[in-house]
Amino acid sequence: MMISSLCRFANTSRALVLQPNAVLLAVAEVSATCVVQHRSPNCSQSRRHFHALKTTADHGDKIVEVQEVKRFMTDCMVKAGATESHARQLADVLAEGDIRGHYSHGLNRLDMYIRDVKEKVCKGEGEPTILKERAASAWVDGNNLLGPVVGNFCMDLAVKKAKDAGVGWVVAKGSNHFGIAGWYSMRAMKQGLLGLAFTNTSPIMYPTRASAPAIGTNPLTLAANGVEGDSFVLDMATTAVAVGKIEIAKRKDQKVPDSWGVAAGGRPSREPAEILEGGGLLPLGGYEVTAGYKGYGMGALVEIFCGILGGAHWGPHIRKWMSSTSDADLGQCFIAIDPEGFAPNFHERLQEFMDTMRNLKPIQHQPVLIAGDPERNHTMLVDKCGGIPYHPNQITFADEISERLSVPRMKIKSSA
Amino acid sequence: MMISSLCRFANTSRALVLQPNAVLLAVAEVSATCVVQHRSPNCSQSRRHFHALKTTADHGDKIVEVQEVKRFMTDCMVKAGATESHARQLADVLAEGDIRGHYSHGLNRLDMYIRDVKEKVCKGEGEPTILKERAASAWVDGNNLLGPVVGNFCMDLAVKKAKDAGVGWVVAKGSNHFGIAGWYSMRAMKQGLLGLAFTNTSPIMYPTRASAPAIGTNPLTLAANGVEGDSFVLDMATTAVAVGKIEIAKRKDQKVPDSWGVAAGGRPSREPAEILEGGGLLPLGGYEVTAGYKGYGMGALVEIFCGILGGAHWGPHIRKWMSSTSDADLGQCFIAIDPEGFAPNFHERLQEFMDTMRNLKPIQHQPVLIAGDPERNHTMLVDKCGGIPYHPNQITFADEISERLSVPRMKIKSSA
Repeated sequence: MMISSLCRFANTSRALVLQPNAVLLAVAEVSATCVVQHRSPNCSQSRRHFHALKTTADHGDKIVEVQEVKRFMTDCMVKAGATESHARQLADVLAEGDIRGHYSHGLNRLDMYIRDVKEKVCKGEGEPTILKERAASAWVDGNNLLGPVVGNFCMDLAVKKAKDAGVGWVVAKGSNHFGIAGWYSMRAMKQGLLGLAFTNTSPIMYPTRASAPAIGTNPLTLAANGVEGDSFVLDMATTAVAVGKIEIAKRKDQKVPDSWGVAAGGRPSREPAEILEGGGLLPLGGYEVTAGYKGYGMGALVEIFCGILGGAHWGPHIRKWMSSTSDADLGQCFIAIDPEGFAPNFHERLQEFMDTMRNLKPIQHQPVLIAGDPERNHTMLVDKCGGIPYHPNQITFADEISERLSVPRMKIKSSA
Repeated sequence: MMISSLCRFANTSRALVLQPNAVLLAVAEVSATCVVQHRSPNCSQSRRHFHALKTTADHGDKIVEVQEVKRFMTDCMVKAGATESHARQLADVLAEGDIRGHYSHGLNRLDMYIRDVKEKVCKGEGEPTILKERAASAWVDGNNLLGPVVGNFCMDLAVKKAKDAGVGWVVAKGSNHFGIAGWYSMRAMKQGLLGLAFTNTSPIMYPTRASAPAIGTNPLTLAANGVEGDSFVLDMATTAVAVGKIEIAKRKDQKVPDSWGVAAGGRPSREPAEILEGGGLLPLGGYEVTAGYKGYGMGALVEIFCGILGGAHWGPHIRKWMSSTSDADLGQCFIAIDPEGFAPNFHERLQEFMDTMRNLKPIQHQPVLIAGDPERNHTMLVDKCGGIPYHPNQITFADEISERLSVPRMKIKSSA
C-alpha cells in the first residue's frame, strides 16, 4: 500500500523514495544538522525571519541542477505523449516537491505520470473547460488532463476572480494527481493573495469506528506571504501521518505510535507491516479517544469541497492508488482571497504572528516553527548545494526511465 | 482554567456545566442509551437517514420548554442592558447550544454575557459596520457588540453575497464570544448553501514545542444540507479536546490520554489537575510524534482567517478567558458558498456520501457517524422530552441569576 501523503510541516525526515511499482528504492533521512534553524540575536522583534544555520546534503547524494531535473522530466513526459507545455507544468510541480524536501512527490513519482499518459488513462493535450462561472466561483472540467495543468488553470482563474470580486473559489472534476498541494496555494501567494487548495485521493483512511478505508489522505493547504519573502505555508494531509513514516519504521524494525495506522479491518496496530499490508491510515488525532473523529471530519470537509461539490469521484469510489484501469476523476478545490478586501497591513500582521510563534520559548532545544519552515530549510539546502540532492538509488531509477524512453540521462553536477 | 471549546462530534458525554466564576456546578453524562442510533432495515441505499433508537433524559433532570429558556435568557440580557433584539439573538444561540447537547455553550454561559454587558465591556445596542465591501468579500467592525449580533450580521451578508457572486467571505473585528460556531454555518445551510465559520479565542493551546499557550481552541465549522432534513455539521475546536473532558477525568480521578493537554511550561502530563491548573491544551494530534503540528497548523489557519485577516486581537494578545478588564476584540470569519455554482445535485451527492460513511461496517458495535449526528440525537431527545433537560444544579444557577436581576424564574415543565 503506497499513498500520496502530504504531511509536510515538521517532517524533517526525507520521505521514502517510492517507485510507482511498489519497490522500495531507498530511504534516507536528512541529517538533523541540515534543518536546524538559527535566529539572529540582533533580530528580537518583528520581521525576525527564519534562517538556516547549517545545510549539508547527505554523504553520497548526487546533486542535479534544478533546470536539468526539469529538462529530464519534461523530455520524459513529451516522449510519453504530453505536449511541451503540459510536460513543463508537471515538471515544475514535481521539481518543487523535491526542492521542498518532499521527495515522495517529486522525481520519484515521474514514472506514474509517464505511465498514465502513455496508457491514455490521463490526457497529455487539451485544455480544461469552464462549465459554470459566476463572479467569485467556477466549476471546471479538468478533461482528464494532468493534475498540474488542471490545478494551474483553476488557481489562475481563482486568482483573477479574487482580484475582481475579493474571493475566487474554483472546483474541478475530471482531474488527476497534482503533486504537492502547496504548489497551488503558493501560486496564489505569489500574487499577494491567500491561497488554499484541496484534493481528494484514493481511499486509505479508516473513518472513526470503521472497519474499512473510505477516504483518502485528502490534503489541504493554506499559503500567505509575510514580509521580506517570509511566508506561512501549511500543507498537510488530514491523516495522522504519511505512509512513508510507517515504511521508515518498518525498515528500522520499530513499532509506530498509536494513532498512526490500523491493521486490516481497522484493528488497532502499532506494527508497520500490518498497517502497510492490508491496513491503512488513521485520521489526524488517531483513535476516537484522542479525537480522531476530528481528523475524519476534516477529511470529510476536503471530500465535500472536492468530490461532492465538483461532481467527481469521491471516497471509496476513487480508484485504488497506482491503479490505471480507469480514469482517476479526482475532485480538486482552489481558493484565492485578496487580503486587500479586509483589514490593512495583512502581510505585516501575519509576519508579526509568525515571529511571535517562532519566538515562543521552546520546551527543549528544538525551536517552535511555523508551517513551511522545514520546507524553507530544505529549499536553502538546495540553493547551497546548487541543485537537488538525490539518493543514488533515485538516480538509478531515473536512468532506467531515460533508457526506456530514449531520453538523455540527467546530468549529475556533483556528489555530496 | 476554563475555556470555550467546541469539540462536538462524537462527544456523547454532556459537557461540564461550568459556571463563569469557575465553580464546577455539575457533571452529568447523557446515558449511552440516549444516543444509540438506529438504522431502518428497509432503508439500505441512499437517503438512509439517522434515527435515534431511544432517547431518555437523565433521572432527576429538570425539563424546561425551549421557549421558556429563551424567554428567561432574553429577560436577563435586557435587564443587563441589551436591546430586545440583541438579547433574543443571544438567547437563540445559547438555547441552540443546549438543544444540541453542548451545555457548556448554553445557559451555563449566560452569566458571562450578562456580566460583559452590565460592565460595558461589551455593548448591548448598536449595529455592526461594513468597513469594506466587494462582490464576494466584506470587512466588518463588530463594534464590540454581542458575538451573535455580529455573527448573524456577517453570515447574512455572506449569504447575500454567495447568492449573487457564488461565494461570500466576511471577516469581522471587534467581536465577542459568539456561542456555538455551528449556529452560523447552519444559518447559511438553512438557505441551501454551504456555511463555514471560524473564531479565534483566548490563548490556551500550546503550539508544538512551545512552553506557553499562544493560540485559542480556535474552532471551525462546516455545515451543508443533504436531503430530507439530513445534514453534515462539523463543528470542532482545533485543540484535541475541550477542557470539559479533562474536568470530567479529574472528577473521576482518572488520568487522561496522552495528547489531551500539558502541565505548566508544556511539560507532558496525563494529570487533569496539572493540565487545568496552569497548564493547557494540546493541538489536535497531540504531541509532535503524533502529528500535533497539524492541529497547531489548523489553529494557525483559523487565527489567520480571523485575527490576522480581520485586524482584531490575535493569539497571545487576546484577553484571558473570563477576563473582563478589556474588550475581547475577537476576529471571526464567515463564509457562504452556493452549491448551484458547481456540479448539479450537490445535496443528493452529499447525502450519498453521508449514507456511505454511516453504512461502513463498524469495528465493534458503535456505528460510524457523520459530523453532527451526536447533536442530532440530542436534539431528538429534546423533542421527545418537550424541552431541554437540565441538571438540577444548572437550574439552581439560573434561579440565582433570576433573583439577582429580578427576572421571573424559568418555569420547570417536568422532571425526568
